[in-house]
Amino acid sequence: MNRQYKARIYVTLRPSVLDPAGVAVESGIGQLGIANVKQVRIGKYIELMLTAADENQASEQLDRICDQLLANPVIENYQFDLDEVQVQLGVST
Amino acid sequence: MNRQYKARIYVTLRPSVLDPAGVAVESGIGQLGIANVKQVRIGKYIELMLTAADENQASEQLDRICDQLLANPVIENYQFDLDEVQVQLGVST
Repeated sequence: MNRQYKARIYVTLRPSVLDPAGVAVESGIGQLGIANVKQVRIGKYIELMLTAADENQASEQLDRICDQLLANPVIENYQFDLDEVQVQLGVST
Repeated sequence: MNRQYKARIYVTLRPSVLDPAGVAVESGIGQLGIANVKQVRIGKYIELMLTAADENQASEQLDRICDQLLANPVIENYQFDLDEVQVQLGVST
């Protein structure tokens, strides 16, 4: 009955929050001789597998996981994509 | 002449590389009372703006940036999406 989903979660700093790591990467890119890059912002990317009855339930659980564990809501935003994965049962057994 | 692109870069650990941070997050999710999550993998997500003559040139530059700066090719893979951004010139001036 349960469906399996692959979730891709993107946690990014809110636009008003300074990103010193992004500034450092931007300067590193400049030192590679590439001058046409700007606004580098660094975030986290999390992949996970999740089983749930339907997409709504999966989304609710992901919201909880992101709010309570993965993102700091004071300074970070998050987004996620959910893709249903076909579960292969009893294949080659 | 130059076009502006927004790049979204995902740097992930190669599947054969252990991810202790992912294991820790998986255990943290279990402690929230959510037991149906597995295979948590943590990576980096980078957004940047880039100007280039066309999408090919932008891709080449991103490959260089990822190979040399953002990803460690021994243990990490990367992917990126490129979206052209409409540059607004001379608006409300």
